[in-house]
Amino acid sequence: MKIGLIGFGKAGKAVANVILRSDQHSLEWVLRNSAANTSTAKDFLEVDSPDPAEIVSLAHQTVRQLLNERPVDAIIDFSGAEGIYQYGKEAAVRKITIISAISHYGEAEKKFLEELSLETAVFWSPNITLGVNYLLFAASLLKNIAPDVDIEISEEHFKAKAGVSGTAVKIAESLDVEADSINSVRAGGIVGRHEVIFGFPYQTVRLVHESISREAFGSGALFVAENLVNKPTGFYNFEDLLRPYFFSTSKEESS
Amino acid sequence: MKIGLIGFGKAGKAVANVILRSDQHSLEWVLRNSAANTSTAKDFLEVDSPDPAEIVSLAHQTVRQLLNERPVDAIIDFSGAEGIYQYGKEAAVRKITIISAISHYGEAEKKFLEELSLETAVFWSPNITLGVNYLLFAASLLKNIAPDVDIEISEEHFKAKAGVSGTAVKIAESLDVEADSINSVRAGGIVGRHEVIFGFPYQTVRLVHESISREAFGSGALFVAENLVNKPTGFYNFEDLLRPYFFSTSKEESS
Amino acid sequence: MKIGLIGFGKAGKAVANVILRSDQHSLEWVLRNSAANTSTAKDFLEVDSPDPAEIVSLAHQTVRQLLNERPVDAIIDFSGAEGIYQYGKEAAVRKITIISAISHYGEAEKKFLEELSLETAVFWSPNITLGVNYLLFAASLLKNIAPDVDIEISEEHFKAKAGVSGTAVKIAESLDVEADSINSVRAGGIVGRHEVIFGFPYQTVRLVHESISREAFGSGALFVAENLVNKPTGFYNFEDLLRPYFFSTSKEESS
Amino acid sequence: MKIGLIGFGKAGKAVANVILRSDQHSLEWVLRNSAANTSTAKDFLEVDSPDPAEIVSLAHQTVRQLLNERPVDAIIDFSGAEGIYQYGKEAAVRKITIISAISHYGEAEKKFLEELSLETAVFWSPNITLGVNYLLFAASLLKNIAPDVDIEISEEHFKAKAGVSGTAVKIAESLDVEADSINSVRAGGIVGRHEVIFGFPYQTVRLVHESISREAFGSGALFVAENLVNKPTGFYNFEDLLRPYFFSTSKEESS
Repeated sequence: MKIGLIGFGKAGKAVANVILRSDQHSLEWVLRNSAANTSTAKDFLEVDSPDPAEIVSLAHQTVRQLLNERPVDAIIDFSGAEGIYQYGKEAAVRKITIISAISHYGEAEKKFLEELSLETAVFWSPNITLGVNYLLFAASLLKNIAPDVDIEISEEHFKAKAGVSGTAVKIAESLDVEADSINSVRAGGIVGRHEVIFGFPYQTVRLVHESISREAFGSGALFVAENLVNKPTGFYNFEDLLRPYFFSTSKEESS
Repeated sequence: MKIGLIGFGKAGKAVANVILRSDQHSLEWVLRNSAANTSTAKDFLEVDSPDPAEIVSLAHQTVRQLLNERPVDAIIDFSGAEGIYQYGKEAAVRKITIISAISHYGEAEKKFLEELSLETAVFWSPNITLGVNYLLFAASLLKNIAPDVDIEISEEHFKAKAGVSGTAVKIAESLDVEADSINSVRAGGIVGRHEVIFGFPYQTVRLVHESISREAFGSGALFVAENLVNKPTGFYNFEDLLRPYFFSTSKEESS
Repeated sequence: MKIGLIGFGKAGKAVANVILRSDQHSLEWVLRNSAANTSTAKDFLEVDSPDPAEIVSLAHQTVRQLLNERPVDAIIDFSGAEGIYQYGKEAAVRKITIISAISHYGEAEKKFLEELSLETAVFWSPNITLGVNYLLFAASLLKNIAPDVDIEISEEHFKAKAGVSGTAVKIAESLDVEADSINSVRAGGIVGRHEVIFGFPYQTVRLVHESISREAFGSGALFVAENLVNKPTGFYNFEDLLRPYFFSTSKEESS
Repeated sequence: MKIGLIGFGKAGKAVANVILRSDQHSLEWVLRNSAANTSTAKDFLEVDSPDPAEIVSLAHQTVRQLLNERPVDAIIDFSGAEGIYQYGKEAAVRKITIISAISHYGEAEKKFLEELSLETAVFWSPNITLGVNYLLFAASLLKNIAPDVDIEISEEHFKAKAGVSGTAVKIAESLDVEADSINSVRAGGIVGRHEVIFGFPYQTVRLVHESISREAFGSGALFVAENLVNKPTGFYNFEDLLRPYFFSTSKEESS
């Protein structure tokens, strides 16, 4: 799959790194607002890859020109909330799959994504790691099986992380538990860890997710890209992509 | 629901304890091979309950007489592999739901259960805790999503437990990983713990189940009984009961 | 060692259970305020033991008479804050070692213990498990090595436990960290767990203690009794007993 | 403190990174066998620092000349087993503290270190992280307190790590437990984790160490350097440096 990447901050770089190392996908270009020191992402990241991976600056080129000259199958967006306005319309009319990993969209952006999804496949997830989304999915399932179970959430992150983890807040919301059921630990030597504790009479179940680097976003974005192939026009979230795996499990096991 | 219990060993006692404390179910009787010191399970366990909970010995009464005089909706079996022959036929013809938690059935017993399932709803699970069965289910789902993920299994039990945990072996089989991926810890101060470690590039997901007492079997057996109500004749396992919860999750979330 | 036990509540019973099962110590008697259904603790607990283990009621017998007729080497106190006044003076004049595991003494009781310690060896620990006291000791050591390390405390207990764990508060005090560094989880299926997280740049150290039953108090009390043998008159805490083990380590390793 | 670093492989680079970011110490130079692309370690690592941090190649300069022209207080060695022969004698005669973090010395090298320790302070630790050495120390202490405790060791590392972790083997040796008490997990998404499980009747204590990057070696090396200041000539290991902290703990707490 030919992929274009929007944004080249810490997360964007980590995602470029993962795409460059993938044999199945080609990083065609990286679009950023400001100019760069190197002409390609593979030079910048010191990765050996056949992908073009040219770093393109909006100052030098319009998005329309870019999409015409260097067509892609999917755009992965790790820029900021405003990014979608720069490329959204041009991508949608060309039926390019849009995969957005922006954490903090306002209502206007969400509405814009929905409009775009009338023309192409649009995916949005504020935390695009496979592990966290699986955890959200599996936790909802258990809550459904046992509605009265005690639920507590623990999250551990590096000392400087301010506020409660947004992912932990989302887990709490999706399980319908109070925000004060979230315990936050901040200390050196920790990257990021989320744990959901289900307490039953006489037994506990724990779901734990740990990341060791931002590259986990890259694996997640590629998983999304691969699972959106041949999907019809529409607006998708991570759960939409995970649900079909359940059915195939069932089939296999009943055979 | 009116329940009859077969077997009154360590697990049987713990299960009786849970049923007696449940407001929704009545423990009608406990059937055991040998005579008992007390006439009811509630006296033996010192539980205050309106349930009859009479301890019945096979020496004094035939199963046919018992089922006629003291009818039940479901039979929960924590006896031994041979137990099913004592009550199976009589229960099936009366359309009594059969819930068996026997760990080690031979082929003959499994075949017999299947025969019985032509006449009534028959359920069998060698580990009848909700937590372990959820873990098996959720782990299979993740393996399906990410077939190439690294999987390792850890199990920790009390010092005296001989051999590798049967539940860990079942987890390994259901995930199609080698038995040497199971790490066993034996030490004082531990009741029972199973952990499945999924290693992805840059992230891990861990599913952990811990029991603190055999009463966990009782909660599991009641969950099964409640979920088999109004189910048609047939042979069921734990996954059959968990699968429908997935669909209701989906519905809720899509609304 | 001949041991007398004061108090026969939940903790007292668990401690009696451990002493009765010990080959090296004899439970001479259990003193309680109210009368009991059985005449010995071994009947009550259904433990087979050569120890007398008679249950003695204060209603029937004075402490003076008891200590004269049934002398012991050590008294272990799991009663309440007032208990020490019933037996303290009589025990001290007879040079009987006093081991108190009372959680909540007032200033008056602490002062009384110190007075008694002028006449006999007196030990007091509000949490008498070996594991928690080792954890306190080892955590202080690490804090000393690395004064600037980030420290967070997690404690998990059964749903009904009210307030923050007293042991967690004590850990926080001894490490000089704020009370809001304690994260409390309350959920079914958990007995009791304390974790101290030390976060360094690039690495973490975690000390974790888990109990699975109150019997852990019994092992701790016997450890204390064995380590107080031949100790001179004085007032001891758990750290006093652990410190000498450090020196013997050092010697062994330098040889 | 003025520091010279021997070796600039993966670990050496991470250690240089930590020293460069430290305000209290100056990285004077890095000695390596082959030439480098950049003239200083701070350019190579893109760290802003006032330290000279010149990369020196043995091809261009003798160690004698280097030590004369650019004197240091301590040498930290992350090269290979042979490295010590290149600089050992010249450093010892100048009373420069030698801190070696080489994992695999032969008997000849150990003997050579001992000879050098007659002239200057020499330190050697095959795993120079503070956390692992604290864990070794604290675990020995607990084993001493409770010689009959059940001990099991778990280590988890990235998929490609071959064989059982050398640190885990050292932990097992120092606790006198069989090598088959070590459980090894290999999976993606894990950097490095060691856990010692102590199982008592009714309770467990767990000591857990996790690293998230090789920079942890740098913090350890600086801890060693700081604790060797003003130490007399002699041969030191990590335990020698940790032991004095114990005494200061005791003093504080008894006051």
